[in-house]
Amino acid sequence: MFTMQPIGFVRSPFQITQAVPKGLGARHEEEGTIEILPEFEAGLMDVEGFSHLFVIWAFDRSEGYELVGRPPTDDRPHGVFATRSPRRPNPIGLTVVELLRRDGAVLHVRGVDMLDGTPILDIKPWLTGVAPEKLRRGWLDEAEQRPK
Amino acid sequence: MFTMQPIGFVRSPFQITQAVPKGLGARHEEEGTIEILPEFEAGLMDVEGFSHLFVIWAFDRSEGYELVGRPPTDDRPHGVFATRSPRRPNPIGLTVVELLRRDGAVLHVRGVDMLDGTPILDIKPWLTGVAPEKLRRGWLDEAEQRPK
Repeated sequence: MFTMQPIGFVRSPFQITQAVPKGLGARHEEEGTIEILPEFEAGLMDVEGFSHLFVIWAFDRSEGYELVGRPPTDDRPHGVFATRSPRRPNPIGLTVVELLRRDGAVLHVRGVDMLDGTPILDIKPWLTGVAPEKLRRGWLDEAEQRPK
Repeated sequence: MFTMQPIGFVRSPFQITQAVPKGLGARHEEEGTIEILPEFEAGLMDVEGFSHLFVIWAFDRSEGYELVGRPPTDDRPHGVFATRSPRRPNPIGLTVVELLRRDGAVLHVRGVDMLDGTPILDIKPWLTGVAPEKLRRGWLDEAEQRPK
């Protein structure tokens, strides 16, 4: 077992789950801030050089998990590890955000999809290595192409 | 505080830290397997449709953390949140792997950079949204361009 502690918290426009654009294909253009706790601020050194960051966070308002469920983007069930469902065995969320600017311990970012007050567990620079033509998106492509 | 449990373990060719190609720019082409525990196998339904997966894992052999340190790719110090150092406030690792095939609870993948036996915390489909021309890589670009 591993015990994780918040390194900071998100400020986002989303107060309730229903307000967050849902599904793997949802566009997330909302701006928000990531406020790192003072004791971890030194760890942000040079983060401002990256255009995009991985933000790893906790689904703190989700309870329990469901191994197979129906995501908002499809009317068919899929395994939790093939979706971004909040009801996961470990309630870990992952978001790629665009870093707009840094003010000390506060990161101004675009692309938040977390609820206001969500605890942040980690931040890492985002670097891709996957060429777009090598990417397959599984059931999501099928669901998007299916007539509504 | 959040408590996380392994959902499975990695089998990789790397028995010791020194064997893993290091640094943000390192190429990871090694193949390995992700073996999901039987009680979580149902959560893999439809995962085989995705070419790439996020694997979220625990640095289980790392102790303590260092907010500022010198990564293997540079001779200058950087904040932990601008690097992939294992010595993080929450010892969470993140790897994008290519899914080669699935055999039941076993995912055969390319691109492992974890030690053999590393505990897996979560798996999510990898979908990008960031255009290459919008990406900046901060200190890493500088370090790579600096004469060696």
